[in-house]
Amino acid sequence: MKVLSQNTAFGGMQGVFSHDSQACKTEMTFAVYVPPQAISASCPVLWYLSGLTCTHANVMEKGEYRRMAAELGLIIVCPDTSPRGNDVPDELTNWQMGKGAGFYLDATETPWAENYQMYTYITQELPAFVGQHFRVDMNRQGIFGHSMGGHGAMTIALKNPERFRSCSAFAPIVEPSTADWSVGAFEKYLGADKAAWRQYDACALVKDGARFPEFLIDQGKADNFLENGLRPWLIEDAIKGTGIDLTLRMHERYDHSYYFISSFMDDHLKWHAKRLA
Amino acid sequence: MKVLSQNTAFGGMQGVFSHDSQACKTEMTFAVYVPPQAISASCPVLWYLSGLTCTHANVMEKGEYRRMAAELGLIIVCPDTSPRGNDVPDELTNWQMGKGAGFYLDATETPWAENYQMYTYITQELPAFVGQHFRVDMNRQGIFGHSMGGHGAMTIALKNPERFRSCSAFAPIVEPSTADWSVGAFEKYLGADKAAWRQYDACALVKDGARFPEFLIDQGKADNFLENGLRPWLIEDAIKGTGIDLTLRMHERYDHSYYFISSFMDDHLKWHAKRLA
Repeated sequence: MKVLSQNTAFGGMQGVFSHDSQACKTEMTFAVYVPPQAISASCPVLWYLSGLTCTHANVMEKGEYRRMAAELGLIIVCPDTSPRGNDVPDELTNWQMGKGAGFYLDATETPWAENYQMYTYITQELPAFVGQHFRVDMNRQGIFGHSMGGHGAMTIALKNPERFRSCSAFAPIVEPSTADWSVGAFEKYLGADKAAWRQYDACALVKDGARFPEFLIDQGKADNFLENGLRPWLIEDAIKGTGIDLTLRMHERYDHSYYFISSFMDDHLKWHAKRLA
Repeated sequence: MKVLSQNTAFGGMQGVFSHDSQACKTEMTFAVYVPPQAISASCPVLWYLSGLTCTHANVMEKGEYRRMAAELGLIIVCPDTSPRGNDVPDELTNWQMGKGAGFYLDATETPWAENYQMYTYITQELPAFVGQHFRVDMNRQGIFGHSMGGHGAMTIALKNPERFRSCSAFAPIVEPSTADWSVGAFEKYLGADKAAWRQYDACALVKDGARFPEFLIDQGKADNFLENGLRPWLIEDAIKGTGIDLTLRMHERYDHSYYFISSFMDDHLKWHAKRLA
């Protein structure tokens, strides 16, 4: 593990690290906040998945999670959103595909399949690596994220309900297989057969029988992507009759930015901490 | 006034604005956070001055001041650290001079004097402008800042004790006229006669008779600039016998970054709010 930076914050430590990823066949960077409680005991871990165009750094700098994580004793891990590096394929003029747009799936199509194995990376390789290097209680894991990362958190929770005790999202893409900004990427990563897309689509997963006990979703009503990209009403419909509990909060005047995320970050951390206690 | 961006945050509004500055003879950008309380009443205003290399954006993105400002009902104004634009002189390879390094003084030397009038801008022009456009109670003003901005806050408070009710600083440059990273800039901005430098130096101002009731200073012990640039013990010495009250808190493990600033931001906002009530 390479240590890229370490800064004391709120009595704990905000670090940025990198390692060679087997799954993505490139060096991957991630951020970890370790609260002061980890000095004397293993702590629950909360995985934060970021949105399109982001790296590990955006939420680390703008998400305002450290104060409450320090209070609640949560380790926060913020992975990158895609593989990086000169040898990794990309579409330079398309922010919805390639670097910064991994969609937390395992690509099957050429040339993407070689590196874009974000599902395996996030669910297998990174947890094993973090578990080795940090004082994490792997029996107490939660997952959350924003936008594309909200999609990642919800699909990963639905596919791994035994592993995660809690899941929440800020403005998630709940049905990427039909959303404007993801259909193109899904086709390139996964091929034209839409049956293969369903395992990476929260609404389709629920319709196909996947279950998770409960979700918290915050969504701004002034979010430019609400109507064509996010559409939380689709997950509201999909869960009807399934027993899945959804707390969906729609907020006047809030947009898609980190100003929105940080405004409700405390609520999400408290939501998770309660379920990870 | 040009509106560059507006985002809802913590029930209030974080905006970025620009205007044509008479003092600096160029367009100047600044950020304002307006808490929800300003809907129904004028609010106290807190001026935050940033450090070397920063614009208005660094503390806006990384300072984590909005949650507590919304709770306390404080308007937070974050100006830029220097004039900007193609016609403004600069030293491109020197981060301690020119753009991003205005040192909150009025330059007297060629070519800097034409635009680098940050003292006048911060103390006269910007307050008048903000007072026109925002619901500010100008009888309740506080000022704080980081590093070069801590220097700015302390010198401005010492020179205008009738205007500011409160002043605090994160890792301030308390004696810039003798600090490694400011001597060169002071000579270029103000000329070789060091008598002219004293009005922009907190320690010298105190020695020359300037007074402010009390300062709160937080300083990290792992700050790389502590020994040669910041040296808070100099202000501790300077205020002896003056009646100025100094709360100086030295923090193990904290560095010079925004991880340090954000960790103690709440304490500073509460310090000011109490005095601005």
